[in-house]
Amino acid sequence: MLNYQGPLDRVFQALADPTRRAIVERLTQGPASVTELKRPLEISLPAVMQHLAVLETSGLVASDKAGRVRTCRINPAALAEAERWIADRRAEWERRYDRLGEYLKSLEHEGESDEQDR
Amino acid sequence: MLNYQGPLDRVFQALADPTRRAIVERLTQGPASVTELKRPLEISLPAVMQHLAVLETSGLVASDKAGRVRTCRINPAALAEAERWIADRRAEWERRYDRLGEYLKSLEHEGESDEQDR
Repeated sequence: MLNYQGPLDRVFQALADPTRRAIVERLTQGPASVTELKRPLEISLPAVMQHLAVLETSGLVASDKAGRVRTCRINPAALAEAERWIADRRAEWERRYDRLGEYLKSLEHEGESDEQDR
Repeated sequence: MLNYQGPLDRVFQALADPTRRAIVERLTQGPASVTELKRPLEISLPAVMQHLAVLETSGLVASDKAGRVRTCRINPAALAEAERWIADRRAEWERRYDRLGEYLKSLEHEGESDEQDR
């Protein structure tokens, strides 16, 4: 049951901060330089770099440097993994909920035939 | 762009820990008492309670007490909100990717008609 150490911890941790989610949101619209990412954020360059480091460690963001410009891009695979984990939980919950619904319906039908028997 | 303070921070933070994800996973299969949740985890009761407090603050888990038994259940709405945030990012990324594909295809077609013109 405790077999989840690693990547998912870091992805969810990375997404737990509004500035980092804003960076992810920006990058889903296309690659951007660090300067472009910094512009709407109203935080210092070192703070942006720190958030980017967390995002890169999590695998959500990749970057490469050409000359003096570092360009960042989203890594959709990491995002997909987090989405899948949540979707699997929801599916499990819905299955259980459906089974419960069927069970309650069967009780209802039993109740109806009991009434007919009278 | 920075309008995400609050609930999502806490949900993703709560999911960033393997023990808490194991608890969420267990609860998607149905409500459970604290004792039942503790059993497979091999951690102390205070540690379980601490994880449950984080999960309850995030809104992922709700609980109520009858006599001496506290029963925990999943709150699918909080899980759905996190899923939606990720799904929206993926949808945005895919839209962009499709547009890029169409653009590249249009360049290809232009290339073809250029060749036909020769």
